[in-house]
Order: sequence, then structure tokens, then C-alpha cells
Amino acid sequence: MVGGVTDRGTARMSPRPVIIDCDPGQDDAVALVMALARPDAIEVLAVTAVGGNVPLRLTERNARRVVELCGRPDLPVHAGCAAPLIVPLETAEYVHGETGLDGSGLPDPERPLTSGHAVDAMIDLIEARPEGAVTLVATGPLTNVALAFAKAPAVMRRLERIVLMGGALELGNVTPAAEFNVYVDPHAARMVFQGGVPITMFGLDVTHKVLVTDARLRRVREAGTGAAAAIHGMMEFAARYDRERYSAEGGPLHDPCTIAWLLQPDLFRGRECRVEIETDSPLTRGMTVVDWLGRAPEKNAAVMRDADADGFFDLLDDCLKRLG
Amino acid sequence: MVGGVTDRGTARMSPRPVIIDCDPGQDDAVALVMALARPDAIEVLAVTAVGGNVPLRLTERNARRVVELCGRPDLPVHAGCAAPLIVPLETAEYVHGETGLDGSGLPDPERPLTSGHAVDAMIDLIEARPEGAVTLVATGPLTNVALAFAKAPAVMRRLERIVLMGGALELGNVTPAAEFNVYVDPHAARMVFQGGVPITMFGLDVTHKVLVTDARLRRVREAGTGAAAAIHGMMEFAARYDRERYSAEGGPLHDPCTIAWLLQPDLFRGRECRVEIETDSPLTRGMTVVDWLGRAPEKNAAVMRDADADGFFDLLDDCLKRLG
Amino acid sequence: MVGGVTDRGTARMSPRPVIIDCDPGQDDAVALVMALARPDAIEVLAVTAVGGNVPLRLTERNARRVVELCGRPDLPVHAGCAAPLIVPLETAEYVHGETGLDGSGLPDPERPLTSGHAVDAMIDLIEARPEGAVTLVATGPLTNVALAFAKAPAVMRRLERIVLMGGALELGNVTPAAEFNVYVDPHAARMVFQGGVPITMFGLDVTHKVLVTDARLRRVREAGTGAAAAIHGMMEFAARYDRERYSAEGGPLHDPCTIAWLLQPDLFRGRECRVEIETDSPLTRGMTVVDWLGRAPEKNAAVMRDADADGFFDLLDDCLKRLG
Amino acid sequence: MVGGVTDRGTARMSPRPVIIDCDPGQDDAVALVMALARPDAIEVLAVTAVGGNVPLRLTERNARRVVELCGRPDLPVHAGCAAPLIVPLETAEYVHGETGLDGSGLPDPERPLTSGHAVDAMIDLIEARPEGAVTLVATGPLTNVALAFAKAPAVMRRLERIVLMGGALELGNVTPAAEFNVYVDPHAARMVFQGGVPITMFGLDVTHKVLVTDARLRRVREAGTGAAAAIHGMMEFAARYDRERYSAEGGPLHDPCTIAWLLQPDLFRGRECRVEIETDSPLTRGMTVVDWLGRAPEKNAAVMRDADADGFFDLLDDCLKRLG
Repeated sequence: MVGGVTDRGTARMSPRPVIIDCDPGQDDAVALVMALARPDAIEVLAVTAVGGNVPLRLTERNARRVVELCGRPDLPVHAGCAAPLIVPLETAEYVHGETGLDGSGLPDPERPLTSGHAVDAMIDLIEARPEGAVTLVATGPLTNVALAFAKAPAVMRRLERIVLMGGALELGNVTPAAEFNVYVDPHAARMVFQGGVPITMFGLDVTHKVLVTDARLRRVREAGTGAAAAIHGMMEFAARYDRERYSAEGGPLHDPCTIAWLLQPDLFRGRECRVEIETDSPLTRGMTVVDWLGRAPEKNAAVMRDADADGFFDLLDDCLKRLG
Repeated sequence: MVGGVTDRGTARMSPRPVIIDCDPGQDDAVALVMALARPDAIEVLAVTAVGGNVPLRLTERNARRVVELCGRPDLPVHAGCAAPLIVPLETAEYVHGETGLDGSGLPDPERPLTSGHAVDAMIDLIEARPEGAVTLVATGPLTNVALAFAKAPAVMRRLERIVLMGGALELGNVTPAAEFNVYVDPHAARMVFQGGVPITMFGLDVTHKVLVTDARLRRVREAGTGAAAAIHGMMEFAARYDRERYSAEGGPLHDPCTIAWLLQPDLFRGRECRVEIETDSPLTRGMTVVDWLGRAPEKNAAVMRDADADGFFDLLDDCLKRLG
Repeated sequence: MVGGVTDRGTARMSPRPVIIDCDPGQDDAVALVMALARPDAIEVLAVTAVGGNVPLRLTERNARRVVELCGRPDLPVHAGCAAPLIVPLETAEYVHGETGLDGSGLPDPERPLTSGHAVDAMIDLIEARPEGAVTLVATGPLTNVALAFAKAPAVMRRLERIVLMGGALELGNVTPAAEFNVYVDPHAARMVFQGGVPITMFGLDVTHKVLVTDARLRRVREAGTGAAAAIHGMMEFAARYDRERYSAEGGPLHDPCTIAWLLQPDLFRGRECRVEIETDSPLTRGMTVVDWLGRAPEKNAAVMRDADADGFFDLLDDCLKRLG
Repeated sequence: MVGGVTDRGTARMSPRPVIIDCDPGQDDAVALVMALARPDAIEVLAVTAVGGNVPLRLTERNARRVVELCGRPDLPVHAGCAAPLIVPLETAEYVHGETGLDGSGLPDPERPLTSGHAVDAMIDLIEARPEGAVTLVATGPLTNVALAFAKAPAVMRRLERIVLMGGALELGNVTPAAEFNVYVDPHAARMVFQGGVPITMFGLDVTHKVLVTDARLRRVREAGTGAAAAIHGMMEFAARYDRERYSAEGGPLHDPCTIAWLLQPDLFRGRECRVEIETDSPLTRGMTVVDWLGRAPEKNAAVMRDADADGFFDLLDDCLKRLG
């Protein structure tokens, strides 16, 4: 097992520069809020949006709604790819509602999109910082990230790491074999996993251990801030679908695991593995084939499998209170 | 969850007629011994051998060695297919040793093979009994069974059920996605799973809950019979590979779960699912894609996932003592 | 280029023993008639039927109708597989009509089916003759033949050769990439092409050079015999579909090329090639990938590409007149 | 059959704005020379280079060598992608020699690369012209073009047409099923063929009808200009491989067909078809599955199949003489 501590985690004196590529989505929004609540630890360089949970015209708008909720209208928000590289886009309004942020009660954004394609913004920001400085967090389909690898592979290899929500070691959600983000653009995922940058992967195995129970939902609301109210509404809405489906005590919370790991890596446990992406078979399309038992010599991802859920919700509570 | 009780389980007055198709293999041998130890419950009609763990010329010989060990030299043993339908045979001497029964100390068989191809024997035996009478147990690659479906689908659909060891819901063993028996002949497995006969599937998820610990091994030896000594030697040999690999307290015991379920279904728990077999992708070849969450309407297999391991070893102990 | 002369063709003193596996179908029927018209050259050991152009219950019946038309009610006709190994059967009534022999005017057969499965009959007949004695002609999906390979590979390798209609070097007919017989059971075709027996393959490239023009149709009718009348009716019916589709001067005549090659190999020209069968991709399923330019070292088929169509119709005329 | 005349071909008053994406390669170089010889008909906006026949660092350099040979050092030459989107790059030095322009005798380029990625240059140039104004010629793997579609699909759909060398209706060259350009980056080809822009496809079927015979080679040399000498050297070098392989009277001339069609469309004949690209099967990877018989309703490419080779070489002669 690898612990959650990264090589540079503990000794870091200045906040870690991070680009967040996402498709908000309620759980993307929670991830964004947590990142923006902790400028001491995370310097968000830009938010880039991709089509996924809902179409791009909504995800980029939702990204702006969330940064404005967090009092950061200055933050660049770039739009990227509206559709996967090869296969048609499949969205998930059945989980997220028609807007993607149903339940949030957030107003329309006031600021316009930042000009420039997400892929170019990503490449320029990474190139402008020293080698190994920038971390990329990806919580949607990996179309933008893959395109950046195709266009500027040498620049992308300057990344310190890609921390992503996607995949599953055991059971998928959108099909028996595949998780939504990887399923939606399997070719992009394959390009990213073979891109040569270390990956920390939060798949369904770990996110299904971070359950939004009634008690935890109440605690979010009781944080009492404006962001807390929005987040409570979103988490309540999004959990509805999964609670019905999995008959669990609560729905899983996917995307915020990525930010929580940046803030407090010891909340999670996993293992360095070789991960390959199935792109071709209709039956197993989008599967993250994880060599958990360690046959393959070349590891390309730290696959997280266990989480301290109580610790996670303590961290969320702290973030919400800091945000005010 | 479905319990282990079959519709006819409890009220059965006469032993259940069973054909055992296998590729012994130490764990196939344990399964055979358990079946032959309980003529009150199981009437073994024939043993049919297939190439798998080791080549056919060894598996059919090993089947004869085991039936003779159990004092049943009269039992028909038929040889079937030496190789998978489409792909080349891959064997597993790294687990089972060169003979397939390394550790058993069993002598060469005295009786010759029964004439007639395994596939014809299977078909004739099923046809000779009433509709729904015969159960087929399969503990090797499914080549023989698939061929019987191709040749006589209407006869095969007279089967009460196929109880098989194969597949995995979570992690494979021979590849990250696939278990050995299904991997070796994925096309055969696909034919069997779409054959229209109810299946009870014992995959790695459940067999890895039936671990051969040191204490359990000792107990086998202490049963003190001739069969017990042979089985102790085989289980010790076969567990070696898996113990090194999985660093567990003991190696899993795969094939005997099938017979144990026939004898005492309440040792296992599982769920009716749709299972499809990946035949095409090199990366996920031989994967049993299990729709555990129940999207697909048409169920074709009761997929077992949990086992009462102590209960299993009590049953094994009882079998060994009965066999004398 | 290989000429059509086989190693034993010219010096053959006694008729060549042949098994004909087919799915009649009008063009299968013409092939059968040609074979039965030449007992001096071809000894038909048995006709075996498979589901293909129409379902098995019609193809086996049609086979009996044709052998009775030829005055050979004694000839064994065995039924084999009703459906492909793995994929569902797709039939071609749009070409052959509801009965498969539309246009023939043939009566119901008088004799019943011969008992015994086609696959067993095939194996027994080959085993009963010396090594290299028997030729197998296959003009339908290769399900029966593949099953025989799976059940008794050593016996099948005693075949002198398999002469089959199937595949295409250039364009398919049922899809852009695939010809009907191979498309219908691609897994069976793969098993046969990798079975180790020399193959002579008549694909669409050559059969589309044997066109049923109006003048040739007239000549068939003018042969004036009972068989000629039936064959005229069938060829007229079957050509209708292809003439509309290909806007050619006439429809192709597929299956009889196999028998014509046995009778007069110099009517055809081709080349020894490596042929592999696509089983996995939905887009190219059933394609015969022919290495015409000779990269692969291991040849497994003589792929015919050119035909002397006038010579073929002279041969057909001669057969019809002999049959009387 | 569609003739070669495009809707705007005859009435065009001003030269057609064209971007040439290529991987020179001797035949790419001939295409470039022909385009630059006819400023009356073709306004080359930029040349973009991609990895293919040889690595990118050579193809971009070769592109500069050729534009300087043609007296156009001012022409922008942009470098694009060094490798295919998903699969590793495979090059063809066995055809083109180590430099890619072996036989040309061309000096090193004097001018540096134009700044800006090929994909951005492509997008900017198309966006700067009216809808439907720009034609894209692609004579290498389609990686750059696909990336442009992924980044700016709406801009790419402003293209008048994509004219490309790639694919095959019948036989491939790099494998039995696939032509080199499409094989090298099949995913890119799939993205381009499903991109919604009309395509004119010059596959091996037509380029193998434009043979570089000895007489035609002599005629090139006799044009007597500097460009003619370089082209003669390149064509002689490149034809060597194919002449040995195909035992033909001369090697095929692939890429220049695209430019010849822009200059004189009536040199070629073809048909509007549906073309789909196989990306998944190892056996048929990179195949252009052409629905020549017209089953599919949605056509996406004019597939050229016949050429007036003498007319082509007259045109080439004219170009060489104009270039001086």
C-alpha cells in the first residue's frame, strides 16, 4: 500500500499550483469549493470545462457559477471540448438534473468565459511554471487533457501529477465494467494513462466509501455559510439517484476525493499499479483494467481503494467554515 | 441475495444425477472426491475430461487416478477436447505441477479410458434421463460443454442446471480481468452462458473466501484415511503458488465449491445476475462481465460471492471420513 | 498463380470420394446436381446440411429434394447444426425465397433424413477411408465443419482438402467487408481456416466472374432434361436479386464453382495465400483477410480469383445432359 | 460514378486557397511541387507537417526543403504532431530512405520553421477565410487534421472539402487490409471521416493506376529543370521498393493524385460512398471499409477508383515546365 503522502506533501511551504479540469456536476462543484477554500494549500491557476455530466455550454457556465460563489470571479474559466474524441457524448442528467447543478440554487454567472481554448490555457500555464510545479486535477471525461497530450506531450510531461476521479477496480456504474468519466471518452482516458505522467486515480472503489449519509448532510447544512447551503442542496440532490440505486445508507461522493487528497493525503490508501484502458470492446468499453496484483512491471497510477470517510467530512466541514 | 437452496434441494429423496466435466488439477480432484464420497446425495453418471490445467492426456488420466482412489474404477471416464475452440491452449503447470496432480502420490490408473467422446457421452446421458433430471458440474475450461451445446442444444436445455467454477466479479487471476477457466476458452464460455440453461457460477470472489490455511490443512491430514492423505498432499502443493502470490493466510480452494453447493447450498450466498463473456478484446479476454447491480433484465446465472469457509471445511472433513 | 490442377487431378483413376456440406439454396442445389451428374469423377459419400441460406429444417429437406431429383434417394443426407456457434443465425430469404429452393418446382422428398448428426457422419466417413482420400466440399456457413474440427481434429486432418465457397478478397456482399457464408458464422470459419487442412477458396471475386446471363440461362433450359428444368427455374429465381443489385448483365453463380473445380480445375486461376478470418470487430466481422501480396510465410488456402465462365457453362451443360 | 468536377471547379476565377498537411516523403514532395507550380489555380496558404513516412523532425524539414526548391521560402511551414493519437508511430524508411527524401539531392532548408502549432495554424487560416473557401489536402497520417477537428469542430466544418491520399477499397499495402496513412493513425482517420466535411479519397485502388514507368521517369528528367531533376531522383528512389514488391511495370504514385484532382478533376473517376474506419481489430486495423455497393444512406466520401495515368503525367510535365 502506498500511503497518501506525496513526495513533496509535507514540506511544501507555498500553495501548490493546480489546474482543475471538470464538468460540473454537483460533485465537481464540491471539489471546486474545497480547493478554493484553501488558498494556503492550493493555488488554483485556472478552471477548464469539458462536456460530460451535462453539455459543455452548461459545464463552463456552472464552473463560473461556482467560482463566483466562492468569491473568485477573477479566476480564469476556459471552455474546452464539447464532445469526446471519437464516440458521441453521453451525458448524465438522470443524476445531475437538467442544469448539472440542480439543487444548488446558484444564480447565473456575472463574468464571461475567459478567452482561449482550455487545451491552450492548460499548456500555457504548465509551460509558464517550472518543471514539476503544476498539478492537474481532472474530474470529468479526459477529453481536454488528452488533447493537450496530443498537442504538446513534452509540456504535459512537466506536470507533477494528474489527480483524477475515474474508473473502477471492481464494478462500474454506467455499465457493469465501466465508470462514467472513463466510459464517456475511453480513447482520451487511454491517451492520458499512457501519457507518462504519474496519476493518482480515485475510482468508484474508493468514492463509494465516502458516503453522503443523512447525518453528514445535516452537518454540511449546519456549517451555516452561503457555500454550505448551496453545497447541501447539491449533495442532497445528487445523492438521491445513487441512494435509490445502491440502497445504501447514502450516495457516494466522487470528485471531491481528488482535492481532499491534495489537502490531506493520509485520508486515502491505495497501491501503485499498471492501469490500462479498454477502448475497443462494446462489452467492456471504458473499463480501467487495474493490475492490482502486480504482474506488470510498469506502474502508471496510484490507485486509491480505501478512504477515511469521517476524516473526509471533517475536512469538508473545515473548508466550508473557512470559506465563510 | 439468493440463498443456496435450489428448488429441489431439500425435498430430494434420491441422489441427484450429476456429470462432472473437469481438468484435474488438484482442486478438481478434491471436487471429485467430495462428490464420490456422498452417493446418498450425488449420483455421478460420468466424469468427462478436457484440456486445461494440464493437457488432456494428463487430465483424463488424472480423472481415472482419482475415481480409482475413491474405489470407483467402474465409473465411466471419457476424454473430450484437447484444445479450446478457437484460441491455442494455455496450461497452468506453474500452479499444478507437471502432472497436474503433483503432491497427490497417486499411482497410475489401472482401467483404460471409456470409449466415446466426452461430448457424446454428455449428450447421451442427459437424453437418457427425464427432462430436468441431470446436473452438469464443470470445473475446467468449458470446451466440452460448449461443443455439446453446439451439437445438441435441445438436449443440453434438458439440464437442471450447470454448476461451474469460473470467472470473477472483481479481479482475475490469469490476467487482471480474467479467471483461468474462462480465459482459456472464452468462446466456449460465451456459448455456455448464452445457452439457456440456469448456471450457478463460483468465481474467484467466492473461492478466495475458502482459504486453505495451515490449520485446515492439518485437519485434512488428521482425517487419517487414504484419500485424506492424497488430498492433503495435493492441497498443500496447490496452495503454495497462491500463498506466495496473494500473501494470504492460505491459498483459495476453487473447484470443490461446486460440489459443496450441491451438498449444502446454504454454505454460499450470491445473486441472480446477467453475465456476459468478453471474447474479443485482448485486454479483457475471458472476463465474466457480471451485472451485479441489476440493470439487465435477463438473468442467466446465480453468481456466488460469499462462503461459509468453516462450514465448507466441516463438510470436507465429513466427506473424507465417509470415504474411509 | 497456381493453376487449377491438383496434385492428383489428372492421373486419378477412380472417382474422388467427396462429402458435400451445404445449405441449399439454389446455388448449392446446382452444385449438388453437378456432383451427382459425374459419378465417374466424384463419389458423393454423403450430403450434410447446415442452417444458412434458410433454416436447417429447410436446408436438410432441400438436400433430400435435390438428391431425389438426381435419382439418388439412397444417398445419406444428415442434418447438422441449426445455428452458428456463437452468433445468432441470419438467413437470406431475400435471395433464396421462403423455401430456399424457390423456382425449382421440386416435390417434397420421399425419403426421411439419415440418422446421425452431420458432424459424426463427417468424422466417421473420413476415418473409414485412407489418410488423404476424402475431399470436403462446403458451400454454406462452416458450422458443421468447425464442429468436426473441434471434436476430432486428428480425423479432420486426414482430409485431402476442403473446397469451399466463401469470403472475398475485395468487396463483400452482406456487408462491405464480408461475404454471407463467412459472415454468418465467422467463428466457425476461423476454426476451419486455422485447422491445418489445405483449402481451396472460391470467394466473391471469382464467383462474380461466373455470371448467369440470359443466353446462358436459355442454354440450361435447352438441355431439355428434368434436372435442367429445375435448375433453370432456380437459377432464374436466384439471379433476380443480384441482377437488380449489381446492375450486371447477370447474377453470379457461387457454390457450383467448387464442384466445377473438382471436375475441371483448369477453369480457375488463383494463388496460395494466408487467409485469416475477422471474428471480433462489428465493422469487419466475417471478413476473409487475404494476404494476396504474400507477406505471411504460412499459406493456408489457394484463393481463386479468375474463372473461365464460358468453360464453366460448357461443363454445366455437359453435366445436365449426362444426368438425363 | 461521380466525375471529377467539383461544384465550383470550372467557374473558379481566382486560385483556390489550400492548406497542405503532409509527411514528406518523396510523393508528398511531388504533390507540393505540383501545387506550387500552379499559383493560377492553387493558393497554398501553408504547409503543415506531421510524423508519418519518417519522424516529424524530418518531415517538417523536408517540407521546408521542397518549398525552397520551388522558390517559395516565404511560405509558412508549421510542425504539428510527432506521433499518432493513441498508437505508437510506425514509419516507412524502407520505402522512403532514412531522410524521407532520399534521391532528391536537395540541400538543407535555409529558413526556420514558422512558429505556431500546425493545428492552430490550420484552424486560424480556415477561420480567417469565408465559410467554404478553404480546401485541405492531406497526404500523411491524419493526426493533425483530427486534432483540429477535436479542438475546433465548427471551424473545420467551414472547409470546402478534404482531399486526401489514404485507404484502399481492395488490398492494403502495410497489411492485407490497410493502407499506410490510415493504418498509422486509425483513430485520427476515424475522427476525420466522421467529421462532417466532404472528403475526396485517393486510395491505393486509384494510385496503383498511376504507375511510374521507365518512359514516364525519362520524361520527367527531360523536362530539364532543377525541380525536374530533384523529382526524377525522388520518384526513381521511391519506385524502387514498390516495383520489387508488386512486380509491376512501375511503382504507384500516391500523394500527387490529390493535387492533380484539384487541377484537373476529370483525370479521375469514383463514386460517393459511406466510408468507415476500423480502429479496433488487430487484424483489420486501419482498414477503410468502403460501402461501394451503396447500402448505407449517408455518404461521406467521393472514393476515387480510376485514373487517366497518361493525362496525369501530361499534367505533371506541364507543372514541371511552368516551375522552370
